[in-house]
Amino acid sequence: MSSLYSLENLRVVLVSPRNPLNIGAAARAMSNFGARTLRVVTPYEPAFREARSAVGASDLLQSAEVFAGVAEAVTDCALVVGTTAVRTRKLQHPLRPLESGARLIRKRLTNGKVALLFGSERIGLTNEDMSHCDWLLRIQTCEENISMNLGQTVAVCLYELAREGKVAATTEAHRPAVAEDVERFTELVNDSLQMSGYPGPADGNEQKVRRLIRRMKLSAEDAEVWLGIARQILWKLNNPQTPQRERT
Amino acid sequence: MSSLYSLENLRVVLVSPRNPLNIGAAARAMSNFGARTLRVVTPYEPAFREARSAVGASDLLQSAEVFAGVAEAVTDCALVVGTTAVRTRKLQHPLRPLESGARLIRKRLTNGKVALLFGSERIGLTNEDMSHCDWLLRIQTCEENISMNLGQTVAVCLYELAREGKVAATTEAHRPAVAEDVERFTELVNDSLQMSGYPGPADGNEQKVRRLIRRMKLSAEDAEVWLGIARQILWKLNNPQTPQRERT
Repeated sequence: MSSLYSLENLRVVLVSPRNPLNIGAAARAMSNFGARTLRVVTPYEPAFREARSAVGASDLLQSAEVFAGVAEAVTDCALVVGTTAVRTRKLQHPLRPLESGARLIRKRLTNGKVALLFGSERIGLTNEDMSHCDWLLRIQTCEENISMNLGQTVAVCLYELAREGKVAATTEAHRPAVAEDVERFTELVNDSLQMSGYPGPADGNEQKVRRLIRRMKLSAEDAEVWLGIARQILWKLNNPQTPQRERT
Repeated sequence: MSSLYSLENLRVVLVSPRNPLNIGAAARAMSNFGARTLRVVTPYEPAFREARSAVGASDLLQSAEVFAGVAEAVTDCALVVGTTAVRTRKLQHPLRPLESGARLIRKRLTNGKVALLFGSERIGLTNEDMSHCDWLLRIQTCEENISMNLGQTVAVCLYELAREGKVAATTEAHRPAVAEDVERFTELVNDSLQMSGYPGPADGNEQKVRRLIRRMKLSAEDAEVWLGIARQILWKLNNPQTPQRERT
């Protein structure tokens, strides 16, 4: 059972993509995060053909629609959002960081279709493309390299859009070992150390080992394994000549 | 002024990558989000050569180091985290969703190096790879298509790690042991077990012991004590006749 936010109403729009691998990568990320409708505006034709005919190309890619302009590609959408890396260029639009932008988009997806536009690999969205947008979205990156790969940009945006609100609890069910087992393990280690000529109780080492083992915060399961290990080693220390212990 | 979280202490480790484009894409995402150290384990050699010699290949890629195994690639890291898409395979590790996992990683980055492992395109991380990990990280995806592209996986993980947000300072004075010491302790225990006639690698016990020891979450101090204990016992197993070890 997936608890991803539904992206059924999202339209991913690639504007003038040039690299078939990026088109394929965008489609793959869509299918990972549950977006189903891909629209492509004036793609570089050979690239789009190649992406579509690639081995393993998804249904999503097969059924992608091609449009002659951004306007045509977003007609049924009640909100149009563009993605951009730029923040120095004088933007005519409100610019939102991905995280807060994603929250707004999710709200709008509940009752209407939303278009998310990605520009070409070389120049991104043009001013003309952006003029169709209500606002712009930016992924925060390092100043030194703000230019992201197209497929990776799509993946990051969709990940953020689909992420569940509540964070699931961790899966570990740590059942702690009972003190009796911890103590038994401590004794076995201390006995092994004594057999090996390690400084003993007089040097305070018995308690040191106990504290050391307490700090392991052993689970019940792990305590059993460690007991088996310690028993085997202690047995061998006591029976150095016997080639192999008989299994019982 | 960027307010991304610093990933200076992160080591991105690609295990057996096969596609030069994915290696390049991983490096690009790293540079977008401020991670600087790339390590590659047993790459498919022609692919790695091609990625490195690609036009515009980054310094980051040029200075990537190659390792013969996961153990060697994570020696200086106090936390080792693997990424996986799988949740049905019976995992031997705690599995955390990216969001909460990223918070834990950020905390640990404040005072030590953290390795983040990505498996090969075909099969992901193997059980042997995972046995070097403290826990695993999963990006939540649709049930219908859980398999993400490698470059996109790296981008999404680094985006989540670097995203701004205040990070709670660690309260623990716990300075975690580096992987090198954890691995050395693992070897000593495995050697002692072999000497004692415990079922060996053929029974999968070598990896089982490694996971068991990883779960101890050893501090640097305790690791030293355990290494001393294990050395002493192994020495005695090897020298059953010698009455007392000479102190050195």
